[in-house]
Amino acid sequence: MTISDILMQACSAVYEKTKNIIGTVEGSKKFDRGAGGDVSTKIDLVAEQAVIETIRNSDLNPTIIGEECGKIPGERGLIIMDAIDGTTNANRGIPFYCCSLAYSTGSDLSSVVDAAIIDLARGDIYHASRNKGAYINSNKLKVTKNNTSGDHTDSVNDDILIGMNLSGAPRDIINRLAGIISGVTHTRLLGANALELCYLARGFTDAFIDFRGKIRTTDMAAAYLVVKESGGNLYSMNGSELDSKLETNRGLSFLAVRNSEIFHRLAHDLHIFD
Amino acid sequence: MTISDILMQACSAVYEKTKNIIGTVEGSKKFDRGAGGDVSTKIDLVAEQAVIETIRNSDLNPTIIGEECGKIPGERGLIIMDAIDGTTNANRGIPFYCCSLAYSTGSDLSSVVDAAIIDLARGDIYHASRNKGAYINSNKLKVTKNNTSGDHTDSVNDDILIGMNLSGAPRDIINRLAGIISGVTHTRLLGANALELCYLARGFTDAFIDFRGKIRTTDMAAAYLVVKESGGNLYSMNGSELDSKLETNRGLSFLAVRNSEIFHRLAHDLHIFD
Repeated sequence: MTISDILMQACSAVYEKTKNIIGTVEGSKKFDRGAGGDVSTKIDLVAEQAVIETIRNSDLNPTIIGEECGKIPGERGLIIMDAIDGTTNANRGIPFYCCSLAYSTGSDLSSVVDAAIIDLARGDIYHASRNKGAYINSNKLKVTKNNTSGDHTDSVNDDILIGMNLSGAPRDIINRLAGIISGVTHTRLLGANALELCYLARGFTDAFIDFRGKIRTTDMAAAYLVVKESGGNLYSMNGSELDSKLETNRGLSFLAVRNSEIFHRLAHDLHIFD
Repeated sequence: MTISDILMQACSAVYEKTKNIIGTVEGSKKFDRGAGGDVSTKIDLVAEQAVIETIRNSDLNPTIIGEECGKIPGERGLIIMDAIDGTTNANRGIPFYCCSLAYSTGSDLSSVVDAAIIDLARGDIYHASRNKGAYINSNKLKVTKNNTSGDHTDSVNDDILIGMNLSGAPRDIINRLAGIISGVTHTRLLGANALELCYLARGFTDAFIDFRGKIRTTDMAAAYLVVKESGGNLYSMNGSELDSKLETNRGLSFLAVRNSEIFHRLAHDLHIFD
């Protein structure tokens, strides 16, 4: 079994273990804060346990990093998990949340070599391996190089659709994004960053922006590879290609885009090179 | 068959007629602008046709108002349709769009007496009749009077979740909302107003704000009744209870809330009584 297969198997285990408790009073019961600083609910704990069990039943013995479990030392490689991304959606009932798993051979975002993300409300698995492309289930994802939508339509090319995360954004960040919000046709804020980046990789959106500095590198490790392998790219706020140490206490600001045309269009409005 | 049954039957007809073309190149083909001023795509036209056919096969003979068809005169009552709300989501592939149908005995939002909204990605039908409550499928919706989530959890009461529509919002509106965005725990922008108001009625979100003055009364006629009958309420920007003429060329700004506690909390931050 490849590492990619193990990640996908762990995603499926999370789906099975959580599907009957997500959105219930039981599933949303709160616990002490996890290692990453967020409030944990029962589904977060159940999901992490499902991943850890799957990894332990495999012949991998990686170090495992998770929001609840902190760092579990191992021998080879690093599994980075956000066992439930979109916990608020899951607990409220909004059907948009996922499990995000990455495998890295080093300590940087750019050393992630395998990734799997499962849409827990629909069952779709997004996965990618370095230099081998990104997939939804068995279908290859390829964002188009020009400004049209990916796996669906060619006729919406004047409708720019930007995903962003504004939850609790300070006023200076809102001001910085105001030009984009006013100027583009459509904005979305769906509430599960990893899955929103999968939507970008699928061509459903044209860009995704989070300038709050709150997303942990560990929460976006898997989606980073899915976007890259689909042909998209990710940039820091100064316009350099995004990279960072894989640490749970490190918050990132970034812009992900389907193609360079979108990047240059947004970079101007976002004062990225100012 | 009651009027409510006819609206629900029309919703189901739209679901059947559109399910295989939504998200396809064919479905997103563009046509001349509809009567409401938006660009029409094939799914908008197919959906309106399905509604009109269902109404004509019933014993109702109402006037029908729609984005594409304009106003079709009839004898008794008024059917207001937004045959596809969330066309951009539908054409892009984002599974959040609906068909919204209302029946009114008069010419105002407050004279809507029956409403049906179908979540076209999931098949759920939200419906309401005046003084008879709001439902999802056969389950009654009742937003709680205190600040906890509706049909799901009691344990998220410190996580305020606000839906809003910011697409193309001018800077003064963004500034007015900046305090809310910065101050509340979570914001969402899902891209189909009627369905977002159904999420509010279901207790998935605590409020929904659209201050852009762009939502037509006809686009929210059905959701207005669903929110009201679930126990929530809608307000204009000056704090009065929302009402308006049912006209396709009239744009509204409004705040919808689950309960008065949420209203008073938000009214201050939104300068509603200033």
